Amino acid sequence: METKISPLAVKLPALAPLAGVRLGAVAAGIRYRERTDLVMLELAPGTSVAGVFTRNRCPGAPVDWCRAALKGGRARAVVVNAGNANVFTGRAGRETCAATAAAAARLVGCKPGEVFIASTGVIGEALPTERLTAALPGLHAGLGADGWEAAARGIMTTDTFPKAATATARIGGAEVRITGIAKGSGMIAPDMATMLCFIATDAKLPAAALDKLLRRGVAGSFNATTVDSDTSTSDTVLLFATGQARHPRVPAAGGAMLREFARALDAVLLDLALAVVRDGEGASKFVRIDVRGAVTARSARKVAMAVANSPLVKTAIAGEDANWGRIVMAVGKAGEPADRDRLSIAVGGVWMARDGGVVPGYDETPVVAHMRGREIAIEIDLGLGKGAGTAWTCDLTHGYIDINGSYRS
Amino acid sequence: METKISPLAVKLPALAPLAGVRLGAVAAGIRYRERTDLVMLELAPGTSVAGVFTRNRCPGAPVDWCRAALKGGRARAVVVNAGNANVFTGRAGRETCAATAAAAARLVGCKPGEVFIASTGVIGEALPTERLTAALPGLHAGLGADGWEAAARGIMTTDTFPKAATATARIGGAEVRITGIAKGSGMIAPDMATMLCFIATDAKLPAAALDKLLRRGVAGSFNATTVDSDTSTSDTVLLFATGQARHPRVPAAGGAMLREFARALDAVLLDLALAVVRDGEGASKFVRIDVRGAVTARSARKVAMAVANSPLVKTAIAGEDANWGRIVMAVGKAGEPADRDRLSIAVGGVWMARDGGVVPGYDETPVVAHMRGREIAIEIDLGLGKGAGTAWTCDLTHGYIDINGSYRS
Repeated sequence: METKISPLAVKLPALAPLAGVRLGAVAAGIRYRERTDLVMLELAPGTSVAGVFTRNRCPGAPVDWCRAALKGGRARAVVVNAGNANVFTGRAGRETCAATAAAAARLVGCKPGEVFIASTGVIGEALPTERLTAALPGLHAGLGADGWEAAARGIMTTDTFPKAATATARIGGAEVRITGIAKGSGMIAPDMATMLCFIATDAKLPAAALDKLLRRGVAGSFNATTVDSDTSTSDTVLLFATGQARHPRVPAAGGAMLREFARALDAVLLDLALAVVRDGEGASKFVRIDVRGAVTARSARKVAMAVANSPLVKTAIAGEDANWGRIVMAVGKAGEPADRDRLSIAVGGVWMARDGGVVPGYDETPVVAHMRGREIAIEIDLGLGKGAGTAWTCDLTHGYIDINGSYRS
Repeated sequence: METKISPLAVKLPALAPLAGVRLGAVAAGIRYRERTDLVMLELAPGTSVAGVFTRNRCPGAPVDWCRAALKGGRARAVVVNAGNANVFTGRAGRETCAATAAAAARLVGCKPGEVFIASTGVIGEALPTERLTAALPGLHAGLGADGWEAAARGIMTTDTFPKAATATARIGGAEVRITGIAKGSGMIAPDMATMLCFIATDAKLPAAALDKLLRRGVAGSFNATTVDSDTSTSDTVLLFATGQARHPRVPAAGGAMLREFARALDAVLLDLALAVVRDGEGASKFVRIDVRGAVTARSARKVAMAVANSPLVKTAIAGEDANWGRIVMAVGKAGEPADRDRLSIAVGGVWMARDGGVVPGYDETPVVAHMRGREIAIEIDLGLGKGAGTAWTCDLTHGYIDINGSYRS
């Protein structure tokens, strides 16, 4: 398989250390050769945690592990391996999680329940636990505050570029930092989260406030993106607050004090989610779909996702065809209130169809030019109400078939 | 665009005349060159009708027309054009339907409301009404009882082979015939029906009985198939009973008297639906997914359709990879009750995964051989209850991208 970097790739931002997080990656040889595939984060004592996971009904053992660990509300370590998802592995998979957590807990000096685990890669194959646990001591010894890029690279599978985002915000006058990394490229139709994403902040936040912020942020970012409509068994977004920043105490309910922090977190989540879309398997174009005029925001988001998931819309975009007919079809198949005769569609800012028909004298020239670009903007006005929503996706190309039609990718 | 015949194509059966139906096709030049694109059926006086249509919320003008006409319960003619779907065409589209029905009604000597209309092809372009109505008199003059194959060919768009099915059954000791034609290849995820399908029987059946039979039959045939998860704006299945056969009167409720007829109708519907799947855009393999052990039959069908719609399962099949991991993912994403640790999966009759893990000593050899064939059988046992259901689909190949990624296909 060639591993050409996505034409939609974005550059990794500069990633400053974040107080209370040391991290790194090593090559454990679990599946890949000559690359890092095992990542660890060590978190300062007192770190709170929130998590959002796949809604897939056949989740992997690590997702079960994290859901249970999350009840404690505290985190001291994260262990992530790439190449084997530890999904559909039965009792052996659960034992791998327990052994991994025990080994990491010994190194860090914490309870196994404070260790979070994530795995990504092939489904249905046993994970060689010993290779993982044998590599942990060396990995732990090398952890550092400057390991963010190494970690972002170590969790990649079919990703063609590493994904990270960072932002700062003020809480009660004090500056705090938020930094996150993510991986994901295919099996992306997150229904609470997407493939793996780990975010940390040095803010000191109660787990309840953290949870509220994360759920809100994920709804408008990861859950508004899709590559191929397939929901992974391993989707995991974890947000850690190390509490190392010096700011006034934040109440459990969060509230106005966290307004700026919430905006910064939303921006980090969206950056990471869109980086995953930009690395969508085989993607050649990045597509934003804005729906307005829906009866509710929820309805607008459903319509936007129906368009984003339509293979016929996505292949038309790959073919640089502003095929509004397929957009009409996708709007209609969403099952949400829609009136064909009030529907308007713009591509690249040009309204080509309005109130149920082609705009008279419609000049295709600027739309054709827009379709040749890398960033495609589709706007849909349902003409019914005030609900608005956005979805992001990529096109569907031969590259997707190449990547996924080869044996046991 | 090359128009190589699908490797999964089935031969057209011999299509005997059906009493009360005369049909044919001509080249009206609406969009295609050098092929027939306009089809007409004339039905004997007294013909009853039932219909099932797309659930797409942006249906075409012909679907609206048929829904209204269906209220009368009587049919004397059908006019179908291929190449232009008359969808998202506003008032002009409605006027085209009215003009078409008026012209056909004059030729046949019936009310416009007894004329059924269907259009298939590109969405969002005005249909040149005059070319259609101008071609009708010549078409009508040439209608004959032996026109079934011509009609099956005349309604094709991206189809690579014509689709028809026929069966006989006995009602109260008398033999009746059922014959149908269908078209469809892409934008196939029927949610009540699929692209165009017209079936006639010479039985004399009340519209209410006909409706009941059709709805039941469509649920287990067209609605259990998918090519690309996209629900067309034009899906139409019409069933006509000409009443020319001599059998005892059938009550409106139908009942036991129609048991054999229902079986024969179901077989015709399934034949036609599966022919559409076999002509799925770019298809190289025909896939049957049987789910059992679900909590209900409805749940089993939803799981089967989730597997059938998964791009990752479909590309794996194209790559001849019996990738059970992706099947596990697709089962889980259906959102139906499932327990990873009770899940079993067979491919080609070989149980490769049982009770949540790979079968010990699993020998891949027969499965690899099965995956190289044209007909792929996937069995899934959820291990929860007695619900069973089946879905049919095809694989997802470069051919699909070729067909749909070219400009304005």
